[in-house]
Amino acid sequence: MTKVLPRSVERLSQLLASLPSIGPKTANRLTFYLLGRDKSELREFGEALSSLKDNLLICQRCFIITEEDPCPICRDEGREQSRIAVVEEPLDVIALERARYNGLYHVLGGQISPLNNVSPEDLRIKELIQRLSQEHVEELILATDPSLEGEATALFIQERIEENQREGKIPTTLQISRLARGLPVGGDLEYADELTIGRALEGRQIIRQNDKNGSK
Amino acid sequence: MTKVLPRSVERLSQLLASLPSIGPKTANRLTFYLLGRDKSELREFGEALSSLKDNLLICQRCFIITEEDPCPICRDEGREQSRIAVVEEPLDVIALERARYNGLYHVLGGQISPLNNVSPEDLRIKELIQRLSQEHVEELILATDPSLEGEATALFIQERIEENQREGKIPTTLQISRLARGLPVGGDLEYADELTIGRALEGRQIIRQNDKNGSK
Repeated sequence: MTKVLPRSVERLSQLLASLPSIGPKTANRLTFYLLGRDKSELREFGEALSSLKDNLLICQRCFIITEEDPCPICRDEGREQSRIAVVEEPLDVIALERARYNGLYHVLGGQISPLNNVSPEDLRIKELIQRLSQEHVEELILATDPSLEGEATALFIQERIEENQREGKIPTTLQISRLARGLPVGGDLEYADELTIGRALEGRQIIRQNDKNGSK
Repeated sequence: MTKVLPRSVERLSQLLASLPSIGPKTANRLTFYLLGRDKSELREFGEALSSLKDNLLICQRCFIITEEDPCPICRDEGREQSRIAVVEEPLDVIALERARYNGLYHVLGGQISPLNNVSPEDLRIKELIQRLSQEHVEELILATDPSLEGEATALFIQERIEENQREGKIPTTLQISRLARGLPVGGDLEYADELTIGRALEGRQIIRQNDKNGSK
């Protein structure tokens, strides 16, 4: 078989194929799409990639990726300062921002996962406990993933907080909450799995009180 | 809403989202994946992108993208010189190479598509006719897409060749073929669409001759 692809094409295609969710065929297709773009566009794109991390820091309070420390969210006085959402990854911050959450964040950097060799010490739980003992926090929303590992991580954090509350390091007035589990909006009941439906049943909300109960 | 994403992150994410088959969420996910890579890897990737087209040419015989003109395929004397596969795009060359095709190519640069404003003059059909009148070609395989536009393109080329044959410009010994249409290998009959099944029926191959016919 003759070597068909020019080296530069093959190189970019291999690099693209090393990205998650991009297979070798998609990588080829993307490379040939890029071959159709102007050189100046390619340079701009390449420059954006090369310099991606050049001016980035980690906010030393909430551990979001940022250009300035503290980050724009921590500096924004218009946000609710007494509410912290604990998330696993920076991408979760973007998801909550889209949902118009207006409090602060704490990025753990992952989830407890023995299978992937991630233990509680690898996450920013110590830093969270410290924040809770120093900042005036009224509500902590455990917004970890609704998965086995996410639940375990939330449970671990909850227990760690209660431990610190018993030792008097964190005020007992702190409210801890967890994002509601239930049917996704716009979803189809018949396609929901049994665990999700089970959670939706458990967390069902009464929309009209029974009169007997109401008059008690 | 606070501006959360650093500019460099947003910029790369937007550029990635401008690629085909990559939506804004995938673009975000890819960007955050890239944030986890070393700066040196990002520079290598960026450089591969920036310089993608720097040393590329178009082979003036078969119109493949190449580093040298003529391209490695046209220069490879081990390949069958009297067979040309007419394809729409350079990606089709890679597909045929994988299938161990061992002849030469002619890249049209697209397919006739009035909807997309691509007329026969936009494709390298004139160049193909010229090759057929100058080179010693025994078989021309019309390997355009098995789609409406691909069929129309193949038909157009076939008519143009016959016209030139009548005028004596192309030898009438030239054999013209088309890739077989039928069931994809590994596919499932019940999932095949009726057009494909129809083509598979038309092109069915007799594996055992009827004795009566055989003794005729």
